[in-house]
Amino acid sequence: MAPRIHYDDRPLRDQIVADEKNAYDRSVATAEKMLKRKDGPGNDFLGWLDLPKRNNAALISSIQSTAREVRERADILVCIGIGGSYLGARAAIEYMLPSFDDLREKRVIFAGHQVNSDYLADLKQLVDRYEVAVNVISKSGTTTEPGITFRVVRKWLEEKYGKKEAAARIVATTDPENGALRTLAREEKYAAFDIPRDIGGRFSVLTPVGLFPVAFAGINITKLVRGASGAIPLCSKTSIDKNSAARYAVNRNILFRRGKTIEVLATFQPHLHFVGEWWKQLAGESEGKNHTGIFPSVLDYTTDLHSLGQWMQDGVRCVFETFVILQKTRETVTVPYFKNNSDGLNYLKRKPFESINENAYKGTLLAHSDGGVPVSTIALADRSEETLGQLFYFF
Amino acid sequence: MAPRIHYDDRPLRDQIVADEKNAYDRSVATAEKMLKRKDGPGNDFLGWLDLPKRNNAALISSIQSTAREVRERADILVCIGIGGSYLGARAAIEYMLPSFDDLREKRVIFAGHQVNSDYLADLKQLVDRYEVAVNVISKSGTTTEPGITFRVVRKWLEEKYGKKEAAARIVATTDPENGALRTLAREEKYAAFDIPRDIGGRFSVLTPVGLFPVAFAGINITKLVRGASGAIPLCSKTSIDKNSAARYAVNRNILFRRGKTIEVLATFQPHLHFVGEWWKQLAGESEGKNHTGIFPSVLDYTTDLHSLGQWMQDGVRCVFETFVILQKTRETVTVPYFKNNSDGLNYLKRKPFESINENAYKGTLLAHSDGGVPVSTIALADRSEETLGQLFYFF
Repeated sequence: MAPRIHYDDRPLRDQIVADEKNAYDRSVATAEKMLKRKDGPGNDFLGWLDLPKRNNAALISSIQSTAREVRERADILVCIGIGGSYLGARAAIEYMLPSFDDLREKRVIFAGHQVNSDYLADLKQLVDRYEVAVNVISKSGTTTEPGITFRVVRKWLEEKYGKKEAAARIVATTDPENGALRTLAREEKYAAFDIPRDIGGRFSVLTPVGLFPVAFAGINITKLVRGASGAIPLCSKTSIDKNSAARYAVNRNILFRRGKTIEVLATFQPHLHFVGEWWKQLAGESEGKNHTGIFPSVLDYTTDLHSLGQWMQDGVRCVFETFVILQKTRETVTVPYFKNNSDGLNYLKRKPFESINENAYKGTLLAHSDGGVPVSTIALADRSEETLGQLFYFF
Repeated sequence: MAPRIHYDDRPLRDQIVADEKNAYDRSVATAEKMLKRKDGPGNDFLGWLDLPKRNNAALISSIQSTAREVRERADILVCIGIGGSYLGARAAIEYMLPSFDDLREKRVIFAGHQVNSDYLADLKQLVDRYEVAVNVISKSGTTTEPGITFRVVRKWLEEKYGKKEAAARIVATTDPENGALRTLAREEKYAAFDIPRDIGGRFSVLTPVGLFPVAFAGINITKLVRGASGAIPLCSKTSIDKNSAARYAVNRNILFRRGKTIEVLATFQPHLHFVGEWWKQLAGESEGKNHTGIFPSVLDYTTDLHSLGQWMQDGVRCVFETFVILQKTRETVTVPYFKNNSDGLNYLKRKPFESINENAYKGTLLAHSDGGVPVSTIALADRSEETLGQLFYFF
C-alpha cells in the first residue's frame, strides 16, 4: 500500500542540523533491532509491533459478525471504558463519520470515562427512549470509573429488557482468561473479545478494544487494519532517513533536550480533534516519568488561533509544534459570490474552503516558525480508514 | 447575592509565603484604583468592568423577545462566530443544558469557527431537514472564517425560504454603527444587536454576543447577568485577602516568575469542558506577548488522569494546576448493589457518584501537590446561571 501519510520535517532543518540528527542514527538502528529481537526494557508489551498482522481474518470477521448482530438490536451502543479503552474508538469515529449524530446510521455514546451523576441521568433518558446495547471494556473489570458505570448501565438494561435479553445486548472486551469481567462474562454468557496481554491500553485501538465499537458505528475495520499494516514498512527501517516515525521521535527528543517542554499538535480539521486527544494520552502515558517528558497539548486551528495564536507567536519559547493537515476533504464547498460586496470578501469568490484553509496553514507555519517555534507537519491523504490506520501505527 | 464560587488557595501557602503575596498588596490596590479611574494602559477596553450593571432591563428584555420570536420559527440556531464570539455562548450552553441534543428543547450549532467543507456539507443536510435561523456575530463583518461561512449559510437560507423570510431568520450582532455587517443588516433589515465598542471579544460573553444564542437555547439570561453582578464585590476589593480574583492573579504571577510556564485548568465535570476552552482563550489572548505569558491548557478529569495523570505527577516541574470543582450536581446516581460481587465493587454500594468523584479530586490534589505541582481550587456551588455568571466575572 502506498504511503497515505507524509511526515515533512524540512522546516526543522534550519534548527536541527544533519550531524545532530545523524548522531541518533545508531540509536535508531539499535532500537529497531531491540524491537525486532524483543529484548529491550518493556519487552512484555511489544504486541503492538506486529499487531496489524496478528489481526487475522477470523478475528476480524468475528468482530464484524457480532457487530452486525448488535446493530440489528440497537440504535445506540453505550461504550464503557477509560483512557486507551475509550479514546481510540472515539478518535476513529469522529475522524470517519459525519459531524452530527442526525447523519450517523448508529450512535456510539461513551461512558465510564468520568464520574458524573448528571451525565448518567441524561444517558438514562436515552436508554429509556432508544434501543441500546453495551460494550464494556476493561482488562481487569475492577477499574473504578468503568466498573461503577457498568453496574449502573447493566441494571438499567436488566430492568428494561429482563436479565436474559440484557445479557444478549452486552459485549465484554477483557482479559482472555482472568479477572472480574471475564468471570462475569462467562457466568452471564455475554459475547466477549480478548484484550491481548502484551498490548498496553494506549496501543489498543487496533485490537477488539477499538475495533468492536468502530465496527458497530459502521466503519470498515478490514480497511483500518490494512492501513495499519501498510505503515509497517514506513516505520521499521533502521535508517533514520527512510523511517519517518523514527525521525519524528528523534526530532522530539532533540527539541526536548533543548528546553522545548511543550509539544502542540495543531490540527487544521475538526474531524481530527479526538485523534489529537488519543495522541495526547499515548504521549502522556509513555513519557512524564522522573520529572522529565514532553507536555502534550492539542490545538484545533483555525479555532484556537483566535485563542492561543497570540501565545504561539510571541509567548514563552518552550514549545514546538507538529501540524496535522488533511490533503483532501470529501466535499468541496466554495465561497458564494454576492453582488453586494459589503463584506469585501468577493475576492474569495468560488474559492474552495480548503484552499483558504491551506493558506491559513501555510501562513501559520511561517508565522510561528518566524516567531521561534520549531515546526513540522504530518500530512494525511484523506478521511479514509486506510489513512487513519497508517496514522495510528505511525504514532 | 451570596458568593457561589469560592477560590481556595490554602494549598499554595506552603509555597507562597504571606510576605511574598503581601508584596503585591500595593500593586493590587493600585490596579484596582486604575481600573476605577480608568486611567491605566488599555483603558479603552474596560467596558467589562461594570458590564453586568450596564445590561439594563431594556436590553435584556429586547434580547429575550427576539429570542422568543426566533424560537417560534426555528429548531436550530446556526451561530456563526469565532474566538470570543463563539466560546462564551458555547461554554454557557454546555454548562447549563443536558449532555445530549435529544434532550435539549432547541439546538445551537456553531459554525464559522473553522474552515472546513465536510463540516459545512454536513450542516447543509441539517438545514434541509430542520427549521433553522442564523445568528452571525462579527464586530467588522470581514473576519475571514465567519465572513465566508455566513455567505454560504445565508445563501442556503435564501434558497430555502426566499430572500424576505431568510432575512427574518437572521440576527446580526455587530458594531453599533460601522462595518460591513452593520451595513448589511441595515440593507437587509436583519434584527441586530450591538457589540459595545469598549469590550474586547474575549470579555463579550455577557454582551449580546453571548446572551442572544444563550437565550435562544433556553437559558435564563436575567439570572446569568445577575450572577455576574453578584461577583463584582468579590472581585473589586483593594485588599488582596478579600479579593479572590486578585489573589488568583497574584498567585499566577508569582508562580510564572518561578518558572511555572504551564497552567492546567483541571475540571472534574464534563459540563465544564467549554468553560475551560473559554478560559483558555481569555488567558491566551491576554498574555503571550514579548516571549512571556503562561501557556493555558485544559484537562478534564478523571478522563485525562488516564492520559496526563502520569505526566502531572512526575513530569517536568514547569506546571501549576487550578482545579475547578462542582459542589452539587442536579441529579444523584448511586452505585447499585449486586449480590454477585465479582468486580469487588460492592464496597461502594449506594455511594453517590459525586462522593467518589470528590475522593478522586482530593486524592489527585494531594498526589499532584506531593509531586511538586502548586495547586489551588475554584469551587462552584451548582450548575445554575447565577454561579456561571459569577465564574465568568471572576475570570
